[in-house]
Amino acid sequence: MIGVDVSERVLALARAEWAHPRVTYCRGAVEEVAFPPGCFDLVVSSLVLHYVDDYPGLVGRIAGWLAPGAVLVYSTEHPIYTARWPGDGWALDDAGRRTRWGVDRYADEGAREETWFVPRVRKVHRMVATLINGLLDAGLVVERVVETIPGEPWLRDHPLARDERRRPMFLRVRARKP
Amino acid sequence: MIGVDVSERVLALARAEWAHPRVTYCRGAVEEVAFPPGCFDLVVSSLVLHYVDDYPGLVGRIAGWLAPGAVLVYSTEHPIYTARWPGDGWALDDAGRRTRWGVDRYADEGAREETWFVPRVRKVHRMVATLINGLLDAGLVVERVVETIPGEPWLRDHPLARDERRRPMFLRVRARKP
Repeated sequence: MIGVDVSERVLALARAEWAHPRVTYCRGAVEEVAFPPGCFDLVVSSLVLHYVDDYPGLVGRIAGWLAPGAVLVYSTEHPIYTARWPGDGWALDDAGRRTRWGVDRYADEGAREETWFVPRVRKVHRMVATLINGLLDAGLVVERVVETIPGEPWLRDHPLARDERRRPMFLRVRARKP
Repeated sequence: MIGVDVSERVLALARAEWAHPRVTYCRGAVEEVAFPPGCFDLVVSSLVLHYVDDYPGLVGRIAGWLAPGAVLVYSTEHPIYTARWPGDGWALDDAGRRTRWGVDRYADEGAREETWFVPRVRKVHRMVATLINGLLDAGLVVERVVETIPGEPWLRDHPLARDERRRPMFLRVRARKP
């Protein structure tokens, strides 16, 4: 098993807390790493793809690393979330209450800067169709699409998360190489 | 070829203007029509599914009517479009300009009433994941997802349609029976 991250700090943390004889941690940008064809049974990417400019290129390379029958699972920020405009996304009334989630320029794909803990974080907005079709064009079979929405049992213990039902923050997809 | 519509007026128009020896027009609600298993090479549904309550049930029945290798193509109102809330969808500034498209209660699937030419038109909101997974659960292979967005050449002749790039109105899907 190989864990890849671009951050040496994250890798140091992983090596300290999640060391395992069968896991190797490697530093690398997901856009630049390379592996032999057909060498993985499973590729997992967690909340990385919305930082990547060339989605079709990356998905195509991942598809090449998958063995026949192997699976790609990823999560990414949802297009409804990355299409927020302007700024925070929530429209507020005069009392500061969230009245609705604002979407704009949905069809204008590409980088958008936003404040996310710090100002000017660069994320790449893509449409739902682009995410799904990129997998299909890479020769993968889409097996499941999940929009991460909290359910009522979880909300009973986390009442502040109720607004997460008002718009999806994450999209998760499972695709298989035939 | 069989054309089905619930409206006798629409069928009369179709028979008058699109009569063809190989086309039979039938009156029926899409929720109620029945056909033999495997009898169609192609099923096309145009902007109907967002009126249908039981999407998995309908898609499952359509999948049964498809022959092996046959295709279902449908268009439906986009979840971003049906999740608009409240009312018109566009948030307006004090001068009446459209500032953003408002989404709310995305995870709350089901009927929503809206004004669409006339008041209280009933449409059913569903999430993107529900639309895609419904096809997969019916045993179909998703081949293409299209979000209908006008391109620049078309906008040159239809400048009023530019706002259609700000949020998608329609979702189109092609799925195949293995």
